[in-house]
Amino acid sequence: MASSVTKLDNTKIVAEFLNSFDTFLFDCDGVLWSGTHLLPNVIETLDLLKKLNKKVLFVTNNSTKSREEYTKKFSNFGIEGITKEEIFSSSFATAIYMKNFTNLDSSKDKIWVFGESGIEKELQEVGFTTIGGTDPRLNEPWDQQATPFLPVDPEVKCVVAGLDQSINFHKLCVTFNYLKVPEVQYVATNIDTTFPGKPYLQPGCGSMINLLTTSSGREEPPNCGKPSQLMLDAVFKAYPDLKRERCCMVGDRLNTDIKFGIDGGLGGQLLVLSGVEKAECLTDLSHGFELPNFFAEKLGDVYELYSE
Amino acid sequence: MASSVTKLDNTKIVAEFLNSFDTFLFDCDGVLWSGTHLLPNVIETLDLLKKLNKKVLFVTNNSTKSREEYTKKFSNFGIEGITKEEIFSSSFATAIYMKNFTNLDSSKDKIWVFGESGIEKELQEVGFTTIGGTDPRLNEPWDQQATPFLPVDPEVKCVVAGLDQSINFHKLCVTFNYLKVPEVQYVATNIDTTFPGKPYLQPGCGSMINLLTTSSGREEPPNCGKPSQLMLDAVFKAYPDLKRERCCMVGDRLNTDIKFGIDGGLGGQLLVLSGVEKAECLTDLSHGFELPNFFAEKLGDVYELYSE
Repeated sequence: MASSVTKLDNTKIVAEFLNSFDTFLFDCDGVLWSGTHLLPNVIETLDLLKKLNKKVLFVTNNSTKSREEYTKKFSNFGIEGITKEEIFSSSFATAIYMKNFTNLDSSKDKIWVFGESGIEKELQEVGFTTIGGTDPRLNEPWDQQATPFLPVDPEVKCVVAGLDQSINFHKLCVTFNYLKVPEVQYVATNIDTTFPGKPYLQPGCGSMINLLTTSSGREEPPNCGKPSQLMLDAVFKAYPDLKRERCCMVGDRLNTDIKFGIDGGLGGQLLVLSGVEKAECLTDLSHGFELPNFFAEKLGDVYELYSE
Repeated sequence: MASSVTKLDNTKIVAEFLNSFDTFLFDCDGVLWSGTHLLPNVIETLDLLKKLNKKVLFVTNNSTKSREEYTKKFSNFGIEGITKEEIFSSSFATAIYMKNFTNLDSSKDKIWVFGESGIEKELQEVGFTTIGGTDPRLNEPWDQQATPFLPVDPEVKCVVAGLDQSINFHKLCVTFNYLKVPEVQYVATNIDTTFPGKPYLQPGCGSMINLLTTSSGREEPPNCGKPSQLMLDAVFKAYPDLKRERCCMVGDRLNTDIKFGIDGGLGGQLLVLSGVEKAECLTDLSHGFELPNFFAEKLGDVYELYSE
């Protein structure tokens, strides 16, 4: 194991770890919960951080829910008191990007959405009109002659694509036809090729993006999820007083979460092994990604060891 | 335009073209029909070839139907008298490949199918037990706890994947979990990234394969469709008297049909512009594929010009 990766495995190390940072940014799937299961001692760890006056933020590549809907997800898991302002999702980062970093005019340009309601709601919140997405007519079988979604609407200037757990051929065909229009821009919420579930791992947004990109012959789209720094820019815009060296990113993936923290110059990165990565990733470096400075079996170890 | 590509645009050239070959191998989608529409003068051209004692075979990457079902498709288009033995599909070629070129034992090894009924029926015809595929339980919403398809069946030794126009997240998740088992082999029917429809082009098998390959982290699978020579091997096995230099491949794609004919050493390749490729592909060579020795706007031109 690389000597620079410290395992959180005793009370002293955990105390030093907690003293090193004022702000903790958490990935959610695979860190706080796995699919529909809350992971052990997550609530206790978050309560402990609050008691120690740490700032706690959530930075998720999951685009399927809006930040508003995400607060309900926390509440359903028994994690109370989380506000929309503490949540940064890839759909929110995408909306910020579309509004501020493209030439689209949200008062008249439309966006075709391949993905779930989180994308629609965040884009709408910054003023865009969205079509496609969760429109129930897209659940009808694909019929070239009968689809109400083609020919393409010339007011659509961009396709925003994310994970769609209701993926079907109708959605793929219409999205494909928008992508065949060279003037239509193409942006992805995130590029995670898998996402954790319990007990089964599942294909992720990045794999669906790959289908769309391959079929349409497009270049890979820009994406707004970790490890892209667009998400961190949104965090520092919202909380300008944060000091990077006093922030720690906590996640379960080297190629998104940990890279995000390292690229962003955050003082700490904690890898937890309760999601995608297994312990081997710390010794078999064939994956080619930089290692974090801390790791733990699970987030709840912070509480368990601190309480000892 | 490359001087070596002869356009079928007058009676004399068409007569020379027909005299040069005894056997014509036809791609179907984009050549004979486009989606649900028969292309003009296709029946007349096939009748003409029959009258001239030419052998006519059909070589399609479409895996969705069995050869038996394909004969009905011809019949529904008014093309009568085509037999199963004259049709070579990528699902048939895949079944031949699985039976003869893998270490699987069709009497006991099972195959998980991602795709339509053509794949199931051809694999079953050579003796394999298939699971997945068109099982209606796969149309239920994906539910990690409730799916009857996981955990994986240890008797499954291979995933065969093809185009699935009823693609959904349940199918993707189960197929993904089979692909995460290193011992399970992985074979694709074909790798066309698009397939023609009317009026809209659609994402093809190769794009879905890409989703599966990307998400599972697998290597690209071997594939049994054009331009792979496995399909031509099946043709020459069935018709050992054919002479390659007297065969002409007719298709609408440079990267599958025409490459298939060139790689197989067939005497002729006729590109028709009624499907995927447009005339520009003959002058703008940035696609990087070899050109055919003949082209025509559409197959029906053979009949129209011959009759002049």
